[in-house]
Amino acid sequence: MTVRRLALNQKTTNRWSVEQAVNGCVRAGIEWIGLWREPVHDHGVAAAARLVADAGLRVSSLCRGGFITAFPGGERDATLEDNRRAIDEAAALGAQCLVMVVGGLPDGSRDLAGARSRVADGIASLVPYAQQAGVRLALEPMHPMYCADRGVLSTLDQSLDLAAPHPADAVGVVVDTFHVWWDPRVEAAIERAAGRIASFQVCDWITPLPADALLSRGMMGDGHIDFRHLRRLVEAAGYDGPIEVEIFNADIWAADPDDVVALMRKRYDEHVLD
Amino acid sequence: MTVRRLALNQKTTNRWSVEQAVNGCVRAGIEWIGLWREPVHDHGVAAAARLVADAGLRVSSLCRGGFITAFPGGERDATLEDNRRAIDEAAALGAQCLVMVVGGLPDGSRDLAGARSRVADGIASLVPYAQQAGVRLALEPMHPMYCADRGVLSTLDQSLDLAAPHPADAVGVVVDTFHVWWDPRVEAAIERAAGRIASFQVCDWITPLPADALLSRGMMGDGHIDFRHLRRLVEAAGYDGPIEVEIFNADIWAADPDDVVALMRKRYDEHVLD
Repeated sequence: MTVRRLALNQKTTNRWSVEQAVNGCVRAGIEWIGLWREPVHDHGVAAAARLVADAGLRVSSLCRGGFITAFPGGERDATLEDNRRAIDEAAALGAQCLVMVVGGLPDGSRDLAGARSRVADGIASLVPYAQQAGVRLALEPMHPMYCADRGVLSTLDQSLDLAAPHPADAVGVVVDTFHVWWDPRVEAAIERAAGRIASFQVCDWITPLPADALLSRGMMGDGHIDFRHLRRLVEAAGYDGPIEVEIFNADIWAADPDDVVALMRKRYDEHVLD
Repeated sequence: MTVRRLALNQKTTNRWSVEQAVNGCVRAGIEWIGLWREPVHDHGVAAAARLVADAGLRVSSLCRGGFITAFPGGERDATLEDNRRAIDEAAALGAQCLVMVVGGLPDGSRDLAGARSRVADGIASLVPYAQQAGVRLALEPMHPMYCADRGVLSTLDQSLDLAAPHPADAVGVVVDTFHVWWDPRVEAAIERAAGRIASFQVCDWITPLPADALLSRGMMGDGHIDFRHLRRLVEAAGYDGPIEVEIFNADIWAADPDDVVALMRKRYDEHVLD
């Protein structure tokens, strides 16, 4: 039973600090960790990088950049500047990628095509900086239920279209089972994503959908997603990197984090691996 | 100000019986009504057909057939038989179409491709009966958040693929703004749907998403959808039939139905028409 590729995204153990999450991974024999910027800031970026390295872990992803749908002007400029800071942090941490959640419609706007166009422009403006820093931007298609308020990037195909003008080592995509499992084109899109898959994230789609749509993700095996099918597809597309478990769920956040990690290992074996 | 094409789907005024909804339409000058099978059964199918005709209304749609993802066997046979009854009822009512909500994954199944394949088989098996009855089946792509438990048909493109083997007057599609607005391919798909659009339904996507995902639809203007854009697209694709307002929302259901109809007329003028 190998956990060589298993990564704990620290959102899954939301109340753990970076230090606690690193120690939790070490206790569980997990070699990869996905970090979030806010807890990394709490610890200090350089100190977090040392902590992770000293523990023998590697950073599967840094969450998150993005939110670049604002109209041109001060807010947009500030957001792009913040994205450059996120790129710096991903570089300092040696993260495999910086996850980009692109943002929803600006307040009062119903111009979806316009928002998507500004995302394309924003990515293009960040690519040279990311390349110089050696950081791969990972465009994350979000489930369409987040289109209005989180991410106007709704399918893997759309993310690949957006990535296409840029070198594959500068702009990749995230395949998150929760966001893409429903897509009738997911098989074709993952095949098309060969060379662009920067991150593979797993968590389940559970029903009934929890009341808070942002906390509606489930532990693998608790829902409806065929993880093996999707893992085989990303592997057939050449991806052999970490498999990151990222779960936003109030019940899981309320549980003992060590128990969550143990359950995650078990379910990973049962539902993700062959 | 014309309401010639405006249709009240009776789900929008959920506590009205068929008779109350018909009378409400007449009071408001609305010429089309979308009916649901359960309240039609309460009134009696033949009596409901007479009631609607005597009031000078026409039936824009009957909701709903479908739920045909069960594995072969007794449940599936019973469902297909029930769909034939729904076809009979749509014929008796002179409905423009029978809306097909195809159903989610069977309990415990994670085989999405298999469920979709059974939908294709089920539609094919119903087409001869529908043709004989002169009823058009209208495949409704459902928002991907309903993929697991309501409808494995998730995009307009997928619905068009499913409809393609059958004559356009036997199998069409529903374009419901709530279900399709997020789709990066919606413009291309609506263009492709020329000759297949059996129903155009409008309601808004509101945020934050209400706690009950099944009651998360909003009145036009309360959310993020650009209705004019989508209406122009369906018109460019040749659709000039009724524009049906179908809203599942606890607050709207709690309001006085005549007020809801008046608000619907107002918002239709402000947000849907030019």
